Amino acid sequence: MNLILLFEDDFLVEGQRVRLTGRRLEHVRKVHRAELGDQLCVGLEGGAIGTGRITRLCDRALEMDVSLDRPPPAALPVTLILALPRPIVLRRTLIAATSMGVKRIVLLNANRVEKSYWQSSAVQDASIEDQIVLGLEQARDTMMPEVILRTRFRPFVEDELPSLVVGSLGLVADPDSATPCPRAVDRPVVLAVGPEGGWIDFERERFAACGFEDVELGDRILRVETAIPALLSRLF
Amino acid sequence: MNLILLFEDDFLVEGQRVRLTGRRLEHVRKVHRAELGDQLCVGLEGGAIGTGRITRLCDRALEMDVSLDRPPPAALPVTLILALPRPIVLRRTLIAATSMGVKRIVLLNANRVEKSYWQSSAVQDASIEDQIVLGLEQARDTMMPEVILRTRFRPFVEDELPSLVVGSLGLVADPDSATPCPRAVDRPVVLAVGPEGGWIDFERERFAACGFEDVELGDRILRVETAIPALLSRLF
Repeated sequence: MNLILLFEDDFLVEGQRVRLTGRRLEHVRKVHRAELGDQLCVGLEGGAIGTGRITRLCDRALEMDVSLDRPPPAALPVTLILALPRPIVLRRTLIAATSMGVKRIVLLNANRVEKSYWQSSAVQDASIEDQIVLGLEQARDTMMPEVILRTRFRPFVEDELPSLVVGSLGLVADPDSATPCPRAVDRPVVLAVGPEGGWIDFERERFAACGFEDVELGDRILRVETAIPALLSRLF
Repeated sequence: MNLILLFEDDFLVEGQRVRLTGRRLEHVRKVHRAELGDQLCVGLEGGAIGTGRITRLCDRALEMDVSLDRPPPAALPVTLILALPRPIVLRRTLIAATSMGVKRIVLLNANRVEKSYWQSSAVQDASIEDQIVLGLEQARDTMMPEVILRTRFRPFVEDELPSLVVGSLGLVADPDSATPCPRAVDRPVVLAVGPEGGWIDFERERFAACGFEDVELGDRILRVETAIPALLSRLF
């Protein structure tokens, strides 16, 4: 937790003083090992970042006087379309993508996505929000990404994808491609990352029909939580 | 497991037929759901990759006729110096770095490395090898990286680092740097990644004395298992 993310509900005095309990209190006590008067990096969800000075710290609560004076780090101009991965991989990938600055993530069904993944607690709103908060706290960011669930591939690619990709470079990450992933692109990207085992031909064709190009990072097949930082770092 | 890694001990007939039990047998039965006659991607540790055709499959063992005819994917010309992370992060990072093609990893002590990390089972040879094998199997590679443990910072940077960096670009990843990490470099790199909380000034100075430059990937502080794919993908 490199930044403590604050929410409107935390404020005792609007914009000035917060009171925290639960996970954030525990973290400040046990990991930061903070004491009265210490200053911590804080940020308001959806807003500025700054400093919190501890004015009260006990077993039950933490209070801080906060000063929010700087913008959060810039977002990446990317929409990430991700074939829904296994629950544990989804959790790690949401943290990784959020920490790198992705602000829109579409979790999409695909032929090789196991149906049971959609029943997992990892795709519940509360779990998704938990991972996103961890990613923001890691990267000292405050701007929650939008996470969109699409359980049907075809309506998404036919009805939504064409307008989503307007003005953007559409890329499908594919280890079988012969085209290296471009470096340092100068426009927004919509990046599609397939399931374990890859997209099937029909799915590739639907992306191609929307103007997407296949790109690769080399012969190596990477775990999705490794491939996404590698792709984003290459692109931006 | 995109490749089944074979060892000399697995061969019933040298270079031709293998017999597998344990983890690999379970994986082929339960994840690949393979059947007699199926072909799987295999590779010999330290050698070529190719195909294995299943000639026997039962509860106790799997036998394959193998044909090894292609080289594994190219390695990255990088030595990764990593301040020893928390055990769970170490495990994930070894998989990520190995899957990306790193062939030399130095796990180094630093002021902000917790002493207890060195007592963890994650730094035992057997655990390190387990993660490396997972990384190789993920990326269809066969060449084991060398993992070097250095529990004392100063002797390492004074006695070993100067010769390690000869002919290479020495880089220290540091979110506080003002120099962006270079893209697509044309020579070998020695890349140092610090602990949670960063290197202390003395440590930075020792790297600088060996000609290392500080570089950054932006304002965002990333988890080490996210930062390493992002750095390697930017550099190569």
